[in-house]
Amino acid sequence: MSGETQTGNMSAQRLKALRSLMASQPTPLAAYIIPTADAHNSEYIAAADARRAWLSGFTGSAGTALVSSRALMWTDGRYYTQFARQTDAAVWTLMRQSLPDTPTMDKWITANLKKGSVVGVDPRTISREEWTPLQASLAQAKIKLVAVQKNLVDEARSVMGEKLPPRPCNEVVPLPVEYTGKPAGQKIKELREKMIEKKAEALVITALDEVAYTLNLRGSDIEYNPVFFSYLLITQAKVVLFWANGHLPPTVVDHLKGEGAEVEGRAYDEILNYLIEQAKNLSRTGDGDHSIWLSSDASEAVHRAASGEGVIEKPLNLISEVSPVALAKLVKNEVELEGFRKCHIKDGVAVVRFLRWLHEQISAGNNVTEIQAADKLLEFRKEEKDFMGPSFETIPGAGENGAIIHYSPSREGEQRVIKPDDVFLLDSGGQYKDGTTDITRTRYMGAPDKIPGPFKAAFTRVLRGQAALGSALFPKGVKGNVLDSLARRPLWEVGMDYAHGTGHGVGHCLNVHEGPAGVSWRPYPHDPGLAPGQVLSNEPGYYKVGEYGIRHEDLVEIVAITKDSDHPKAANLLDDYDGRGVLGFSTLTMVPHHRICIAVDLLDDFELAYINGYHQRVLRTLEPVLQQRGLVEDLDWLKAECAPITRE
Amino acid sequence: MSGETQTGNMSAQRLKALRSLMASQPTPLAAYIIPTADAHNSEYIAAADARRAWLSGFTGSAGTALVSSRALMWTDGRYYTQFARQTDAAVWTLMRQSLPDTPTMDKWITANLKKGSVVGVDPRTISREEWTPLQASLAQAKIKLVAVQKNLVDEARSVMGEKLPPRPCNEVVPLPVEYTGKPAGQKIKELREKMIEKKAEALVITALDEVAYTLNLRGSDIEYNPVFFSYLLITQAKVVLFWANGHLPPTVVDHLKGEGAEVEGRAYDEILNYLIEQAKNLSRTGDGDHSIWLSSDASEAVHRAASGEGVIEKPLNLISEVSPVALAKLVKNEVELEGFRKCHIKDGVAVVRFLRWLHEQISAGNNVTEIQAADKLLEFRKEEKDFMGPSFETIPGAGENGAIIHYSPSREGEQRVIKPDDVFLLDSGGQYKDGTTDITRTRYMGAPDKIPGPFKAAFTRVLRGQAALGSALFPKGVKGNVLDSLARRPLWEVGMDYAHGTGHGVGHCLNVHEGPAGVSWRPYPHDPGLAPGQVLSNEPGYYKVGEYGIRHEDLVEIVAITKDSDHPKAANLLDDYDGRGVLGFSTLTMVPHHRICIAVDLLDDFELAYINGYHQRVLRTLEPVLQQRGLVEDLDWLKAECAPITRE
Repeated sequence: MSGETQTGNMSAQRLKALRSLMASQPTPLAAYIIPTADAHNSEYIAAADARRAWLSGFTGSAGTALVSSRALMWTDGRYYTQFARQTDAAVWTLMRQSLPDTPTMDKWITANLKKGSVVGVDPRTISREEWTPLQASLAQAKIKLVAVQKNLVDEARSVMGEKLPPRPCNEVVPLPVEYTGKPAGQKIKELREKMIEKKAEALVITALDEVAYTLNLRGSDIEYNPVFFSYLLITQAKVVLFWANGHLPPTVVDHLKGEGAEVEGRAYDEILNYLIEQAKNLSRTGDGDHSIWLSSDASEAVHRAASGEGVIEKPLNLISEVSPVALAKLVKNEVELEGFRKCHIKDGVAVVRFLRWLHEQISAGNNVTEIQAADKLLEFRKEEKDFMGPSFETIPGAGENGAIIHYSPSREGEQRVIKPDDVFLLDSGGQYKDGTTDITRTRYMGAPDKIPGPFKAAFTRVLRGQAALGSALFPKGVKGNVLDSLARRPLWEVGMDYAHGTGHGVGHCLNVHEGPAGVSWRPYPHDPGLAPGQVLSNEPGYYKVGEYGIRHEDLVEIVAITKDSDHPKAANLLDDYDGRGVLGFSTLTMVPHHRICIAVDLLDDFELAYINGYHQRVLRTLEPVLQQRGLVEDLDWLKAECAPITRE
Repeated sequence: MSGETQTGNMSAQRLKALRSLMASQPTPLAAYIIPTADAHNSEYIAAADARRAWLSGFTGSAGTALVSSRALMWTDGRYYTQFARQTDAAVWTLMRQSLPDTPTMDKWITANLKKGSVVGVDPRTISREEWTPLQASLAQAKIKLVAVQKNLVDEARSVMGEKLPPRPCNEVVPLPVEYTGKPAGQKIKELREKMIEKKAEALVITALDEVAYTLNLRGSDIEYNPVFFSYLLITQAKVVLFWANGHLPPTVVDHLKGEGAEVEGRAYDEILNYLIEQAKNLSRTGDGDHSIWLSSDASEAVHRAASGEGVIEKPLNLISEVSPVALAKLVKNEVELEGFRKCHIKDGVAVVRFLRWLHEQISAGNNVTEIQAADKLLEFRKEEKDFMGPSFETIPGAGENGAIIHYSPSREGEQRVIKPDDVFLLDSGGQYKDGTTDITRTRYMGAPDKIPGPFKAAFTRVLRGQAALGSALFPKGVKGNVLDSLARRPLWEVGMDYAHGTGHGVGHCLNVHEGPAGVSWRPYPHDPGLAPGQVLSNEPGYYKVGEYGIRHEDLVEIVAITKDSDHPKAANLLDDYDGRGVLGFSTLTMVPHHRICIAVDLLDDFELAYINGYHQRVLRTLEPVLQQRGLVEDLDWLKAECAPITRE
C-alpha cells in the first residue's frame, strides 16, 4: 500500500468485509483493535504486518485503528496532515493522540460502547503489558477484551480475494566475533546462569534484535533493521531457534558451532504450539510449579502459550519483566564500543564529503533535490568499509520540510529542490558491521550575511542544549529521564521547546532505536539506570512550522569520569557522589556543526570552548584518514569548518 | 514509646505474643506485615497507630516490619543509626532499604517463605495501590496475602494486659471562608458535578487533609497536621461525616450550614459497615452496576467495603484513582494564595528576628542549645497573627547534626550547644490560618574570615541550584520530576549531590507535605502536571557527614509568565511553547540567605543579580512591617543582611 492513496470507497469495502467477520465471531465483536504491530513488538514492521495501512490507507509509522460501527484512528502530531491526505474523512475519524481533549482508546471504548460489549484484538499484535491495563480498564465498564486467534484483517483480505504479502525470510548471516566481542555460546551461558538465579525453566526471546544479538546473526527482513523473523527458546538442555521452515543453513550452523552454541532449528510458525507442549510437559513433572521467563513486551499470545493458559489446569508461573537480553545488549562491550568509535570515523568521512559536495553544488547554482541529496550521501557511505546500508530512511528536510520531524520525501511527483536560502536539516545513519550511526546536522545553504537572525539564535540555543547534555556529569545509576531538561533549558528560557525526546538508545549493528533506556521527559519504564558502555543519541531540536527545522544529533557513549579523565569538567571534581561514581558522555559522532550559524554572543565561555574543543577533536580524528585516502579537498574544507570560533 | 529504648527482652516478649496470635489464625500466618500507617495513609501518625514502634522500639518516621520466625525491619538511610540504638540486634534485623543489595520485602518473602505460605496484614494499614502489586508478586511464588481483620499487634498488646493508646479526638474548628476562599457547599457542589461525569454513585474521601479541605474544618489529632480522624462520604443525596461518635458540635453544624453544606454525622468506627450497607443497597437497585469513587491510596479495607467484596454476589465497580479532592486542593485559589503570601511575610519577620537574636547570643558568647534555639523561634512565631503552631518538628542542626536530614534533638540527656564555628542548619515552619510555611536557612555562626572554603563553595553551589530552579521557565503541564536536575546541576558538576527530592507540595493551612505533585528524580505517579497556583518547596542541599549540612529551602508559587511579567527572564521570551503557556516560580519565603557564606566568584552575572534581586524584594517587603511594629534593630540587621553583594 505504501505511497498509494486509497479511495474512500476502497477502504469502505475493506471495513465492510472486516465488520462482517466481526459480526460472525462466536460472540460478535462490538469493536476490533488493529495496532501497528508485528508479533515481536517491532518498532518498524514488514509489509506482511501492515494491516492497519491496508485497511485504512494511512501509512504513517504509528497509529492504532479501532473499528466499531465507526472507524477511528489514534495517531500523533507527526501524522495529522498525512492522515488527512491518505484517508477519506467520510469513513475514518482522526483521534489526535497528543491533545488533552482526545480520549485515550480505552476511555473512548468505555464511553461509547455498551456494557456487556466484546472488543477483540489479535493477541499476537498486542504485548502483555499493553493487554493487562487495557483489559482492566474495559472491565471496569463491564466491557470484555477477547483474544481473537485469527487475524480478522488478514481474513478480510483473503475473503476479498487478495493475497497476503509473504513474510520476508531473507538470508541470515553471521556477525563474526571480531565485531561482536562475545561468542553466542558465552551469551547463552550467561543467560543460563541468570535463569538459574531466577529459577526459570525456560527463557523465551521474542524481540527480533534480541535473537540477532544473542546468536550473533544478522538478517534483512525489516528495512533498515538487520534482523530476521524468529523466536529463540533457551533451556538448560537446549537452544531452539524458530526460523523459516526450521532448516538452518550450514553457514549458520557452522557459525553457531564455532561460537560454542548448539542450536536446534524449528519452523517459525511452530512457536506457540511448541510453548504449549512445553507447558504441558512441565506441568507433569516435579511439583508442577515451574516458571517461564519472558519479556513483558512479548505478545499476549506468547504469554498465554508459555504458561499453558487455557490448556493445562494450573498454568505455569510467568516471570514477565524486562528481558535479560535487552539489559545485556544495552551495555556494549569493549569490542562493540571500539567498533562504534571506528564506524563513526568512517561515517564522519562520508558525511563530511557529502556536505562539501552539497555546498559546492548549491554554490555553483546546480539543482539538487532532497532525494538526490539523500542518494548522494548513500553513495559516499557505500565507499566505507563494512557499510551494510542506511540505519533508517534518510530525512533530508529542506526549508519548511525540516520542521516535519519524521519527514520522508516521496520519489513520485514534483521534487523539492534545496535552495540557496534554505536551512537544510539532514538526519541519516548507517549500519556498519562494527556499529550503527545516527547523525543530524543543520546547514544554512547560503551566504553567512544572509542567515536570518532568529534562525541563528535558535540554532545556537539548540547547540547550547546539546552541549549542556553532552558535557553533563551525573551519578551512576540515575535514569535517563532526569537528564532531559538539561538539554531543553536554553530553549525553555525563551519559550521554545521540541516535541520529541532528547535521546534514544542505539543498537550495535542493530536497531537504531533500542530500549530500554533513553532521555525524555517521559520516564522509560524499564530503564535500569545509566551505566558506562551505553550508547545514546543527544538530539535536541527546534521546529518553526512552515519555515525550517533545527536538530543537532550526536551519538554519545557513557563513560566513567574521574579527576584525570579527558573531559572538560573532570578537573573540577570534588567528590564521586559519595562513592556512587561519576558518569559523563563521550561524543562518538565526528562531523562539525555549521560554524556560520552559531551566534557566538549567545554562548558562555564554557560553551564556546566546548564547541571549539569538539571541532578540534573532529579534525584531529578525521585528518589522518582523509590524508591517507588522498581526499585533500575534503580535508581543506573540514579544516575551514573546524577553525576555532572566536568572539568578535 | 517515643524517646524510650526498649530492652531486647521487652521486644522479644511482644514478638512472642504476636507470633502466638499469628499461629492461632484460622490459617496460621507464616509472616505478618506491620507498616507505619494509619487507616488514612497519613504521612505522620498518632500514637494509637504507632504499632511498629511499640513492637520493635524503633520510633523512626518510616519503616515496615515483617515478623515471621524472624523479625525484619525495612527502613531508609536516615534511620540506620537510630535503628541500631533503639532495637536489639539479637531480635531485630535491619533491611537497609536504599541499598541495591537489599531485597525488597516482597522479594525477601518469596525467597524465604515456602510455597503455600500465608502472609497477613491489617487491610486498614495498607493502601489498595500497595496491596495489589504485593499480592501479585507473592502470588507468583504461590504465597498468599490475606487481610487479617483484627490488628494482631493491638491484640498482642491487649493480651499482654496493656491499654491501647486512645485515638485522639480533639476539637474541630471551622476555617472561615476569608481564609479558604471557597465555601464547603461550593466544594461539594463541584465534586458532585465530577461524580456525575464519572457516573459515580458515591465518593469516599479517606485522606484526613482531604476531609479537612472539603469541609473547611481543622483539627489537631496528628501533631503538626491540622487534621482530625474522620471519613467523608458524598452522594448526590447527602454528605456523611464519620467522626468521633457522630455527634457534630453546634459550631461545626452552624459553620457547615453557613457554607451551604448539609452534613450528617456518623461515628468514626461506622465507616466500613456503612460502606458495606451502601453496597448492599445499591446492588439491589438499577442494573446492579453502580460505581464508587475513591482514592487509589485509600486502604484495602475501604476498597473492599466500598465494593461490597465478599458480601454481595457481584461487587460494585470501583473507580480507584487519584482523588478529585487531592487535585482540587493542589491548585490554590486566589484567597489561599494571598494567604500564603501574607503568612510568609509574618513568618519572615519571625525568622529574621530569631536569626538576629541567635547571632547576637553566639557573638556575646552565650550558650544556646539546639532545642533552646527551636523554642526561641517558636516564641517569635507565636507573636504573629493567626499562628497556630509549628508545621513540623523544627530541625535545628548544629555542625555535624545538620548532616542528618531528618534530625530531631532529644530533650533528654546532654544538649548540643551551637558553637561559634558551627554551620547551623535550621529547617522549620508554621501553621497559620492563612497558610503554611516551611523554610530552611543555613548560617555560619562565626566571623566571615573563619568560614571554611569548601563549605562556602558548597553553600554557593546549593544556592545556585536553588536559583536555577527558582528562575526556571517551563511549559505548562510538564510534571515536576523534569525540573529536578536543574537544581542538582551545579552540584553534579563537581561530583556532589543530595539524597532527597528537591521539592514537595504544601497544603494551605494543612499538611506541610502534600501530594500528588513534587520535584524529584523519582516521578510522582499521580502528578497531573504543573499549573499556576500550585505551591511547592525548592530545597536543594548538601550534607557533609560528620561536619555540616547545607539546605536552602523556599516555598514557591507557580505563576503564568508572559513577556510583561515581573520575572527575571520574562523579557527574553520569544514564544509561549507554541501556545502551551509559560510557567515560572514566584518565591513566597521572605528571609535572606547568609551573605557572608556566598562565594561570589562562583556565581555568574545572572545568579548574582538574581540573589541580590531576591534580597531587595525581601527587604522591600519586610521593611514596612518591621518599621510599623517598631522593630528597629531587626530592621537594621535585615538591611545589612540584604545589602547588595558585589564582586571584589
